[in-house]
Amino acid sequence: MIDLEGRLSDSFRSKTLKWLSGEYHGLNGTQYDVLDEVPTSLEFSRLVHISRPVLIRESVIPEDDDQRAWSKEWISGKMGDCEISVAVTPNGRADAVTGGLDGRLYFAEPHTQKMTMPSFLETLSSGTEAEPCRQNSAEVHYLQSQNGNLFTSRYFGLTGEDDPSEFEPLRDYVPSEVPWCSEALDRMPDAVNLWIGDEKSVTSIHSDPYENIYSVIRGAKHFTLLPPTEGWCLKERQYPHATYSRSGPSHELELIPSSSVSTPLVRWSSIADPTAPGALPSDAHPIHVTVKAGETLYLPAGWWHHVRQEGFTVAVNYWYDMEDRGMSWVWLNFFRGTEEPSLGNEEGAGAKAGERAEQ
Amino acid sequence: MIDLEGRLSDSFRSKTLKWLSGEYHGLNGTQYDVLDEVPTSLEFSRLVHISRPVLIRESVIPEDDDQRAWSKEWISGKMGDCEISVAVTPNGRADAVTGGLDGRLYFAEPHTQKMTMPSFLETLSSGTEAEPCRQNSAEVHYLQSQNGNLFTSRYFGLTGEDDPSEFEPLRDYVPSEVPWCSEALDRMPDAVNLWIGDEKSVTSIHSDPYENIYSVIRGAKHFTLLPPTEGWCLKERQYPHATYSRSGPSHELELIPSSSVSTPLVRWSSIADPTAPGALPSDAHPIHVTVKAGETLYLPAGWWHHVRQEGFTVAVNYWYDMEDRGMSWVWLNFFRGTEEPSLGNEEGAGAKAGERAEQ
Repeated sequence: MIDLEGRLSDSFRSKTLKWLSGEYHGLNGTQYDVLDEVPTSLEFSRLVHISRPVLIRESVIPEDDDQRAWSKEWISGKMGDCEISVAVTPNGRADAVTGGLDGRLYFAEPHTQKMTMPSFLETLSSGTEAEPCRQNSAEVHYLQSQNGNLFTSRYFGLTGEDDPSEFEPLRDYVPSEVPWCSEALDRMPDAVNLWIGDEKSVTSIHSDPYENIYSVIRGAKHFTLLPPTEGWCLKERQYPHATYSRSGPSHELELIPSSSVSTPLVRWSSIADPTAPGALPSDAHPIHVTVKAGETLYLPAGWWHHVRQEGFTVAVNYWYDMEDRGMSWVWLNFFRGTEEPSLGNEEGAGAKAGERAEQ
Repeated sequence: MIDLEGRLSDSFRSKTLKWLSGEYHGLNGTQYDVLDEVPTSLEFSRLVHISRPVLIRESVIPEDDDQRAWSKEWISGKMGDCEISVAVTPNGRADAVTGGLDGRLYFAEPHTQKMTMPSFLETLSSGTEAEPCRQNSAEVHYLQSQNGNLFTSRYFGLTGEDDPSEFEPLRDYVPSEVPWCSEALDRMPDAVNLWIGDEKSVTSIHSDPYENIYSVIRGAKHFTLLPPTEGWCLKERQYPHATYSRSGPSHELELIPSSSVSTPLVRWSSIADPTAPGALPSDAHPIHVTVKAGETLYLPAGWWHHVRQEGFTVAVNYWYDMEDRGMSWVWLNFFRGTEEPSLGNEEGAGAKAGERAEQ
C-alpha cells in the first residue's frame, strides 16, 4: 500500500509539475525582453517581479578610453605576476557530471591551480573565433572561481572584515555594484565575479538562488535557459562528489572520489548537453540568448542555465541575494522537489535549492 | 482503480497545499509591514514583489480644509438629489452564502435600489460607534457597487469612451489614481470605488486577482486576511446563484434563485465568519488588520479578506490589474484549485481565480 501510494503520488507530482510548467509556458511563451539601455531602478524592480530573462544591449562595465582594455595584453599588464586561482579539467567540464575511472558517474569539481595571469591567458584561444591556442596542453583552464573573486559582501563594510581579492589591480575597472540593481533590490551584491575562458569550457546546466546581472566584456556567451518550472525536465539525480587532482606537478589530472562519509551527494542534472538534439523532452522550452561583448543579461533567481563561450571571453557577474520574503523561495524549493512532502520512494535528501553552484 | 487513484491523488493534493502553506507561513509568519507614510513608487514596487499586506498610516485621499468633509451632511450636500445605486439585503450579507426559503444554500447577491444619497445615509449609524439608526428599517443598506463607481479605466481615455459616474460631484475630492502605485505597476487603475456603510454590513471572505489600495476616510474597517496559500482552509464549494428582490415597492426582500440554466454556479467559501472561534482549522493563520480613518491598506492580489466596519464608514479603493507575466497568475489559479490537473472526483469547474468578487 505504501509502495502503491508512493507510485501514485509520484505520478500525481509529475502531473502537477507538468501542469504548472504548461500553464507557465502558455502564459509566458519563450519571449524575453530586450532593452537598448540599462533600466532605471524602478523599471528593474518591475522586471524582478516578472522574473524572466532580459537582454540589455549595454554593459554595466564602463568603457575604457584605452582601446586595448580587457585584451589579453592589457589584463596581463595590469595583473603582472600576481598568483591567481584557475580551474583546470581535462575536458573543460568543471562542476559537471563525469565518468570516473571506475565507470561510475561523479559530480566532478575542477582542480584549482595557482598561476600567473600571463601564463593562464596563454592557454586560451586568442580571439573571438576559436583558434589553436599557443600552449598545446590537453588540459582546459577557466578562471571561474565564483567566490566573489572581485568583491564579496565584505567589501561593503557591513561586517568590518577585509575583502582581499586576487584581482585587486582590476578593481579600478569594475564597479563594485550595479546601482539600478542595488536600488531595486535594496541591497548590495553578495558576490562579484570575474570569468575568463574560451570555447573549450562549458558550464553544465544548473540554477542559483540569486538574482544575476551578467555583463560580457570580450567574446560572447551563449546561454540556454529554462524557467524554474521546467526543472523537472532536467532529471536531477544524486551523484557522489569527486575532484580532479594530480599526484605531482607534472602528473596528469585524475578524478579522485571524495569520502562518501564526509562529503554529501550532490544533486545535479543528468542532461549533459541540453543543446544536443533530443536531449530535452518536448515539454521543455529552452530559450537561447547570446550575450555579446558590451551586453548584459538579467538572469532571474532560479532559472536554469547552460553556458558556452565563443573564443576568448571575459565577463563579470553580480550575484544579489533574492528576496526571501513572500512566495519566491517556497516555489523554488517546490520546483526543485528537494523539500516536498515525503512520497515514500524518493531519493535521499539532496542539496537545497539554496546551494549555489558555478556560473 | 480510477476511484482509488482519485482518492489518493486528492490526498496528495491536500498534502501538497498543506506543505506549501506551511512553508510559506514558516518563512513569512503573520507579520505585516506598517509604514508611517505612503511609499515611493520604487518602494511600492518592492512591496508588490513580496506581495504581503502593508498598513500605511497615511491616506491617499487629500485632506480637505473643510472639517466637515466626508460627514453625512457634507456628502449629502455635495450629492443632492442625484440617484445612486445601493445594495440592500435583509441581513447585511451581500455576496455571501445564505440559506434560501427552500432550505438550500445560495450565493446571494443584494437587491440594487435607486435612492438619493440623503435617504441612503439616513439608514446608516451616525458615528464611529454603533448607534441606533434613525430609520427603523430591518433592511441593511450598503453603497458597494464596486463597478468602478467613481472611475473606471475608461476615465483614462485610452478607449475614447465616456466614464459617467453616479458620484460625479465627489470626483473633485478623490484622486483618479494613486501615483506611486500607478508608477510601480506601470498602469492606471482598472476601477476606483466608493464604499459607504456601517457595522450592519459585513463582507464575506473572498479574494480578488487585483492589487488593491484601500483608504478609509471615515470610521474603520477590520480586515481578516489569509494568504493565497491558505485558500484550501476556506472550503470553497459551488453554490447556486440567487438575488434578493421584492415583488412590489413596499414588499419585503425575498431571495430568488436564478435560472440554473443561464446562471453558472458560484464558487465561494463555506466559512461564514472566519473570525468566529473554531471557524478555521489550526493550519490557517489569519492576520487581523484594522484600517482607521486616514490610513491605507495595500491588499495584494489573491489575498483572502473578510471585512467588518465600525459604525459609519466611508472608504475608497483602487483596483489595479495584477502583473500577468511571470508566475503569479499561475500560482493563484493553482491555489484556487480551479484549473489543476483533473483528479477524477473533483467538483465541476468553478469560477476562475480571475473572477472579481465584492470589496
